[in-house]
Amino acid sequence: MKKVAIGADIGGTNTAIGAVDRNGKVLFKTSIKTPQKSENPNGSEVISQKLLSEYISQLTDVINKAIETVKGINNDVEISGIGIGAPNGNYYSGSIEFAPNLPFVGIVNLVNLISGKFPNIPIIKLTNDANAAAIGEQIYGGAKEMKNFAMFTLGTGVGSGLVVNSELVYGHDGFAGECGHAMLVPNGRLCGCGAKGHLEAYCSASGMKRTAFELLAKYNTTDSPLSDKTFNEVDPKMIFDAAEAGDKIATEVFEITGAHLGMGLADIVHNLSPEAIFLFGGITAAGDLIFKPTVESMNEHLLPIFSKRNIQVLPSELPMGDAAIVGASALVFKEMEK
Amino acid sequence: MKKVAIGADIGGTNTAIGAVDRNGKVLFKTSIKTPQKSENPNGSEVISQKLLSEYISQLTDVINKAIETVKGINNDVEISGIGIGAPNGNYYSGSIEFAPNLPFVGIVNLVNLISGKFPNIPIIKLTNDANAAAIGEQIYGGAKEMKNFAMFTLGTGVGSGLVVNSELVYGHDGFAGECGHAMLVPNGRLCGCGAKGHLEAYCSASGMKRTAFELLAKYNTTDSPLSDKTFNEVDPKMIFDAAEAGDKIATEVFEITGAHLGMGLADIVHNLSPEAIFLFGGITAAGDLIFKPTVESMNEHLLPIFSKRNIQVLPSELPMGDAAIVGASALVFKEMEK
Repeated sequence: MKKVAIGADIGGTNTAIGAVDRNGKVLFKTSIKTPQKSENPNGSEVISQKLLSEYISQLTDVINKAIETVKGINNDVEISGIGIGAPNGNYYSGSIEFAPNLPFVGIVNLVNLISGKFPNIPIIKLTNDANAAAIGEQIYGGAKEMKNFAMFTLGTGVGSGLVVNSELVYGHDGFAGECGHAMLVPNGRLCGCGAKGHLEAYCSASGMKRTAFELLAKYNTTDSPLSDKTFNEVDPKMIFDAAEAGDKIATEVFEITGAHLGMGLADIVHNLSPEAIFLFGGITAAGDLIFKPTVESMNEHLLPIFSKRNIQVLPSELPMGDAAIVGASALVFKEMEK
Repeated sequence: MKKVAIGADIGGTNTAIGAVDRNGKVLFKTSIKTPQKSENPNGSEVISQKLLSEYISQLTDVINKAIETVKGINNDVEISGIGIGAPNGNYYSGSIEFAPNLPFVGIVNLVNLISGKFPNIPIIKLTNDANAAAIGEQIYGGAKEMKNFAMFTLGTGVGSGLVVNSELVYGHDGFAGECGHAMLVPNGRLCGCGAKGHLEAYCSASGMKRTAFELLAKYNTTDSPLSDKTFNEVDPKMIFDAAEAGDKIATEVFEITGAHLGMGLADIVHNLSPEAIFLFGGITAAGDLIFKPTVESMNEHLLPIFSKRNIQVLPSELPMGDAAIVGASALVFKEMEK
């Protein structure tokens, strides 16, 4: 029997669902809308329940469709399990807990709800998307042979997943691995979480934009391609294109982003001494523009015993477009190894 | 048979050796001089070998004396093993590797050397002192029931030991758990390791002294008890005594030290989500003076999901004077659980 896992990733806008084989090949994929916070602006319990029940019903339908489709292609398929990546997803409890960007109130035990719909599927597991990406790297990607590594996901926010002695670190309560909230700058930039000076406020997509606007203000630059863009217009792709075209502001944005990211990576090296740190996200396409200042800063902030070792900082080998599905599905194959 | 472990802690000045039972009771203790860096200022291989061979010979003698003494007290004693805490001690290799404050050159495989002298002792293990303290807390102290916790040792330097899923984190190469070198302040104070802005530069004994002198300079204070002390005179005890007497400078030193330490603890919570963080060292005797600003700063820098949880920050339960011996001996009992 060919083993196939269902992966579901609950994003802020859409929920991606796919069927993935043991080699990380996506056999089927689709998506549904994720219910929006704006549909339950006052946090009503009643509306939360209604939205949840509709959502679970839709999720069940598309998972069934995924299963039917892969079994239609190949009769000899066994569905090994369902892996789910979700914001504030707790591996231990199987719950989404107090997710700030979802309309569901309090604690939602998603694994129980899905198990109720798929009683014959042996493995149903939940974690957050960055942890799922780390497990994806271990099961399908560049960390197959590694026992100790870290994964940083750079996007709207900065997430991370930490692997120690081959196991993902969930910590006491299931919420470990939030390295995006590493303290970098005392009384620094306001982070989305409400605290100040966290890595995410410097190295996320909006962090890069904030750096660009600080630099425009600092140098009073009128001739950068970024000088004619509004704060709401600028995104990392624009900054990348400007840097590629030789723009000084954009180039310095990458240098500053790398300098901050490198400090965060140094902290991880000091704490966990990993074999490698993987970076995931659109920004890694910038290659040396981001990797070079990141590695330089990491080494500058390391104890000599570590900086001598040349810790590998590598781009993730997960497929960019399908990484969320692939990462979530990896939860199932990881569980089968236990 | 009563199981007894030998613990040896190689400090910068002295090496403490003791015999410890499974309850952490010290049955015998003594010490010898640690060879000094100044005895081999140019890093000669020949002198290194000579000093090492003399040192191993002395260490063997006192370990034998410890064994004879405890067997003399109680005939029904079994020596379960020897645990050693040493700077740059690598658990995996059993070696002291490039220790900057010892006169030994390069890599010294201490476990092999000691095993050669004690072929019948089944367990001989080495790690650094902070890792040993963490294992001591787990075997004898406040972390007996905990699977995920961290230990910070605050002294001349700041060390740490991290426990994830009940196991000490050694990382890829044996050198994990160097949280004293967490990045806190970009381009901040020079750390002893050569990098800038590390936690140790703010929260070690000399870090507190540096803060005191910065504050004297900032406020131009002439009436603090610290105003009449030289830089080389001031130590944390003096700062503590001044704070207890109501001195504003000394009180602010504790606040600033706690503010920095709290940022470092927040990083650990974000990374590992431990049940508790233990603090070890003379400074913990200051009680609320240091714990209160530390916990406040930690919570201020945490994601709401963690700050709601009231992570415990606790004083170590290891016996202050004997902690080094007790911690090292715990390595043996920890190994027996595997």
